[in-house]
Amino acid sequence: MDLASFLTSVLTSFVIFVVLVLVFTFLSRRPGNAPVYYPSLLLRGLDPGEGRRRGTRSPVGWIRDAISASETDVIAAGGVDAAVYLVFLSSVLSILVYSGIVLLPVLLPVAGTDRGLELTAAAGISPKNDEKNNSAPELPEIQRLALSNIQYIFEDAHIFARTTEISMFIHSLQPQSMRLWAFLLSVYWVSFVTYFVLWKSYKHVSNLRATARSTPDFKPEEFAVLVRDVPRSSPDETIKDSVDSYFRALHPNTFYRSMVVTDHTKADKIYLEIEDHKKKIARAEVLYANSKTESNPEGIKPTHRTGFLGLIGKKVDTIEYCSEQIKELLPKLEAEQKTTLRDKQQQAAIVFFNSRSVAASASQTLHAQVFDKWTVMEAPEPRDIIWPNLSRNIYERQIRQVVVYSIVFLTVVFYMVPITAVSAISTLENLRKVLPFLKVVVDRPAIKTVLQAYLPQIALIVFLALLPAFLMFLSKAEGIPSQSHAVRATSGKYFYFVVFNVFLVYTLGKTLFTSLRTILDNANIGVIINMLATSLPGGATFFLTFVALKFFVGYGLELSRLIPLIIFHLKRKYLCKTEDEVKAAWAPGDLGYSTRVPNDMLIATVVLCYSVMAPLIIPFGVAYFALGWLIAKNQVLRVYVPSYESNGRMWPHMHTRIIAALLLYQATMIGVIGLKKFIYSPILAPLLPISFIFAYICHMRFYPAFANTPLEVAQHELKETPNMDAIYTAYIPQCLKPDKLEDLDVFEDAQSHSTSRAPSI
Amino acid sequence: MDLASFLTSVLTSFVIFVVLVLVFTFLSRRPGNAPVYYPSLLLRGLDPGEGRRRGTRSPVGWIRDAISASETDVIAAGGVDAAVYLVFLSSVLSILVYSGIVLLPVLLPVAGTDRGLELTAAAGISPKNDEKNNSAPELPEIQRLALSNIQYIFEDAHIFARTTEISMFIHSLQPQSMRLWAFLLSVYWVSFVTYFVLWKSYKHVSNLRATARSTPDFKPEEFAVLVRDVPRSSPDETIKDSVDSYFRALHPNTFYRSMVVTDHTKADKIYLEIEDHKKKIARAEVLYANSKTESNPEGIKPTHRTGFLGLIGKKVDTIEYCSEQIKELLPKLEAEQKTTLRDKQQQAAIVFFNSRSVAASASQTLHAQVFDKWTVMEAPEPRDIIWPNLSRNIYERQIRQVVVYSIVFLTVVFYMVPITAVSAISTLENLRKVLPFLKVVVDRPAIKTVLQAYLPQIALIVFLALLPAFLMFLSKAEGIPSQSHAVRATSGKYFYFVVFNVFLVYTLGKTLFTSLRTILDNANIGVIINMLATSLPGGATFFLTFVALKFFVGYGLELSRLIPLIIFHLKRKYLCKTEDEVKAAWAPGDLGYSTRVPNDMLIATVVLCYSVMAPLIIPFGVAYFALGWLIAKNQVLRVYVPSYESNGRMWPHMHTRIIAALLLYQATMIGVIGLKKFIYSPILAPLLPISFIFAYICHMRFYPAFANTPLEVAQHELKETPNMDAIYTAYIPQCLKPDKLEDLDVFEDAQSHSTSRAPSI
Repeated sequence: MDLASFLTSVLTSFVIFVVLVLVFTFLSRRPGNAPVYYPSLLLRGLDPGEGRRRGTRSPVGWIRDAISASETDVIAAGGVDAAVYLVFLSSVLSILVYSGIVLLPVLLPVAGTDRGLELTAAAGISPKNDEKNNSAPELPEIQRLALSNIQYIFEDAHIFARTTEISMFIHSLQPQSMRLWAFLLSVYWVSFVTYFVLWKSYKHVSNLRATARSTPDFKPEEFAVLVRDVPRSSPDETIKDSVDSYFRALHPNTFYRSMVVTDHTKADKIYLEIEDHKKKIARAEVLYANSKTESNPEGIKPTHRTGFLGLIGKKVDTIEYCSEQIKELLPKLEAEQKTTLRDKQQQAAIVFFNSRSVAASASQTLHAQVFDKWTVMEAPEPRDIIWPNLSRNIYERQIRQVVVYSIVFLTVVFYMVPITAVSAISTLENLRKVLPFLKVVVDRPAIKTVLQAYLPQIALIVFLALLPAFLMFLSKAEGIPSQSHAVRATSGKYFYFVVFNVFLVYTLGKTLFTSLRTILDNANIGVIINMLATSLPGGATFFLTFVALKFFVGYGLELSRLIPLIIFHLKRKYLCKTEDEVKAAWAPGDLGYSTRVPNDMLIATVVLCYSVMAPLIIPFGVAYFALGWLIAKNQVLRVYVPSYESNGRMWPHMHTRIIAALLLYQATMIGVIGLKKFIYSPILAPLLPISFIFAYICHMRFYPAFANTPLEVAQHELKETPNMDAIYTAYIPQCLKPDKLEDLDVFEDAQSHSTSRAPSI
Repeated sequence: MDLASFLTSVLTSFVIFVVLVLVFTFLSRRPGNAPVYYPSLLLRGLDPGEGRRRGTRSPVGWIRDAISASETDVIAAGGVDAAVYLVFLSSVLSILVYSGIVLLPVLLPVAGTDRGLELTAAAGISPKNDEKNNSAPELPEIQRLALSNIQYIFEDAHIFARTTEISMFIHSLQPQSMRLWAFLLSVYWVSFVTYFVLWKSYKHVSNLRATARSTPDFKPEEFAVLVRDVPRSSPDETIKDSVDSYFRALHPNTFYRSMVVTDHTKADKIYLEIEDHKKKIARAEVLYANSKTESNPEGIKPTHRTGFLGLIGKKVDTIEYCSEQIKELLPKLEAEQKTTLRDKQQQAAIVFFNSRSVAASASQTLHAQVFDKWTVMEAPEPRDIIWPNLSRNIYERQIRQVVVYSIVFLTVVFYMVPITAVSAISTLENLRKVLPFLKVVVDRPAIKTVLQAYLPQIALIVFLALLPAFLMFLSKAEGIPSQSHAVRATSGKYFYFVVFNVFLVYTLGKTLFTSLRTILDNANIGVIINMLATSLPGGATFFLTFVALKFFVGYGLELSRLIPLIIFHLKRKYLCKTEDEVKAAWAPGDLGYSTRVPNDMLIATVVLCYSVMAPLIIPFGVAYFALGWLIAKNQVLRVYVPSYESNGRMWPHMHTRIIAALLLYQATMIGVIGLKKFIYSPILAPLLPISFIFAYICHMRFYPAFANTPLEVAQHELKETPNMDAIYTAYIPQCLKPDKLEDLDVFEDAQSHSTSRAPSI
């Protein structure tokens, strides 16, 4: 990639960003767009007008709002998970800022004042270098290109190029150069800054979680425990009975009641059918009312066909037909509910206790002598549960996990095959050959430059977009009991995928394929570090573009919400008839951590890895995370609605990934500085063990409180006596809920008996 | 080693064994020896006469007694730990018996009827083989020697030799020989027999543990929880106060009281001094009474000197002097007790709850938000506690562990240096050269043969005897809170030491040193397996001798208790004056699992590894474990007294070691059969992963109940209302105990306040 494309890429990205921000500023002031730009406020019953009015005063009002919002506001709006996500962004930001403060003023002059470049050019040693680095054939080309162009065009880029390869190459000519010391110490600086920031953040998040979990308002999941692997009771005893008698014996004074998990797919189907009919009636009624114009006061009764997609079959009056259907289905549902509760009990249950600390303690206590029976764990939130997974037994879960991990491993390793194929095809020349009709477009210089700049990145991004759903499917197939856990699992898989396939494969590129044989023959870590070290520096420009594209265009789209806006307006105009339908059209969803976090982590990894090799990438990284933090905060406050609350359970996951990135960075730097044959480079070796020790200590100190509820936290007093019935009812699946809450007692028989009432506090 | 030495070795061992058994039969019938042969019975207040009388009827009466004793008897006599040790021995025995039943009748004829030996001898291909296996230069020599001698002397040994190397070598000449199938399937048979037996044993031990833990009589440790890493309280609050207020807040209804761990070294010193003086007085009184003969009715008052070892200094009247000393020391002790309790509180405590299930639950529940504060775990038995380790904080423990592991690693790897040096020197020729005066002895053929047979083994055994104490010291230095845990840790270290240094180093011998460079260059598992495969078969004869020596002589000594007997009689005759001193002279001690288990494991590993290569080792292994089981049972029933009770906590450790041995065996066999270039040998490859999966499933299913107390078990009802005061008193260290129990309340102030009394059941 030459400098022209690089500049074009960054500049176009920036222009797009500015346009999108202007669009946002304009559109978000129009009241009709409120459901798109302020859905979270609307749902919380707040007036978006206030924000909008302030926005009117100044186009950057949203920035002021985002910055001035405290963490408490964020937690109120988006829950602890959103706050933790912001902590993650600001942590990476701090790491980069602290690194940049030292690295930029130190490394740029150190590299920039070195006369190595002219020396190299004069002596014409560049080709020699080329031969020396023959393990990475494409690397010197990019480098020489970047170098020859950057050299006399602008000073900054010049410095940038020097910093990375040239300065280092020069040092290999002057092996005793003390300038390498600056780089060496920089590696240590970045590492220690990371440790410091991560330690502080972990502490902060740990406190956030503790505070959130010890609030005086009660949450159903804090009184419940999820029990799996319930042993098959004797044929004349139901599973419910055995759960009840078991827990009543072990927790005689504190057991409240239990709810056996049932296979309610059939009941759910009927329930959804009824709901569907209800929606149809509501819609038909609106249509009917609207059709009562003055010219036709009777109106037209809406009709539809009963067959496939309403296209074939008998024509019926919608309102009448659906009402009849509901009348028919209701008794069916009731019967099915009874059957489900009685005969479709699964080997899992949710057990309720009458105090938080008892539930916390019970979820951590081993119950049975053999572990494959009566496994207990903390109960997920009701909305968070993946019901079908609860009843999978422990061996099935293990086997599923192994199978899923194997599939993920294969996906991670062999996904690069299509990616490299696409990036080979997607060079402009190839594209012109394969699709000759594109010649007209492609041959125009302006378009050519833009295309050349973006094509590989776009191919990459499109490919990545196809993956998350697949990984989420795999994670759920593992038998994980809750959505939030599945999201974490997906995020983990996606992170390793992204780092391996995007970062490593792209940088190593074909080197990897050609030297695969070498790797297999000398399979050891040294070779891999060597390869990283020779190949990585070449990718700096590519990743600069990648980061720029990601953040300018990505954030522009994120902020302006153009796509949801268009969809919302289209839907409202042509599809939605009832209030509920309009509401569904602007339902904002949650932040989507499963892809958001790994993508941010990819950028963090890239910036960390290049931070010392090419310090100029740091400002880009800072911009990415600063803007990211700002926009995410805005979106959390105004747009997204959390679909579950895991109280920051995501943090240990993020923490581990940042450390993984740090390890990758340290290994690379050991390789890069080692390759220069710098005599003091072994000084870097202790960094890897230090990182492992740091990770271990953090894990030991903080992790237990994320995996379990500490008693300290569970013991906090409640605001009021908990309504145990409400807690219990919260866990009844929608399709099994009796119509009126008073009917609860009817269901008691089938669900469970209560033994003790809430304690009198 | 030639056949003559082999036979001499086995025969002399056997003769020694028979002599020792006869000695035992004779000596154990003499009533004066009862404290040596029946100390456990005496201590439990049973009449050893019954056993002796039965023993009179038949010299093998003890065998009948041992066999007829049920597991309940064993538990009553030696606790669950002893029973678990017997289960371990009988499990290995079962594995070997089941293996032998199939392997001996199948493999011996398969190998024996092959005409390969004659073929080899006729064709003179043996030297070729020698060249082929050049990586193990010493191996073919031993092999050829064993072979040439065994061939025409007796049929069994002939078969034995064939079974191992020859038959395999022949198969390499006839590459398609289907006879190898028998060996290949044997490997599977042994593996599956091991899985089967281990699974059954784990289940059995798990039940044993559950039963032992749910007995209706109460044990203090079941009501207590050990709390470590108590955070420093504010200066005006003692640690005791902060423990009390913390636990009272978290367990408002179930907290009974707490006892803060104190640094009582000084009090302990004074206490021991007093005890010492008391003993001296008792001894002097006996001496005084004895001196009152008819000729001297006044008697001689015993005197001693106060200086160093009673040799220098002023001569004083012992009784008077000691009484005065005690009078002086008693108020000092009392003062020191008060200071200790008030000012020497450590950051650890034992917290008592008023029910077993609450204590079990509390020990498994996370208490603090950060894990480096208020770490809780199950309390060890009072007699089992290592007091000075309790107050080490979590970081110190981690660091100590890392340091200890490094030292152990270095010891395990470099201990072979002295061992190989000794075994090089200890060949007869070297010995004669180094110590010429031995010539007269060494040159006699009979003595020469015996020495040749035993010398290397004796060198080995002496070396091994020096180690356990060192490993125990290291284990305690890790900061482990209980003796039983330290024993387990020592046993684990010792096992890896023994397997690595005795088994691997002896078999690989110098091969290892010469090819160390090769290994380092091609460090991968394949090379190691290859080396194992080429070197191991040569060691068969050595290990046969080793096993024979171990079990005949070792068990003979164990059963006859010659050394304790001699020591006891010497002490009683010349040293002991008072009853207490006699009692101390025959105090039997416990089984000493820390060395016993790894030594048995070494034999099990050796026999397993050679089981298919040289099936004739199986009868030796069976004899070892059958005799071992019998003698251990006898000793448990009559001799040893357990010094702690960990309820079979040792089992998971033994289980893991047996699986480690199995893995070593499987890897070796893959190598050995692979070396024959047998086309179907990859069929063995799945065995290793199967073993890992088996180990994982066992760990997952059974281990949790060994690491923690399941509620199921803790919930069992007690026989009577527990006496909480007795439970509390059990944990007061000897030196801090008030003289009379009524004084307990005086100490209450300093120890802790009780909040709730035992629940009324």
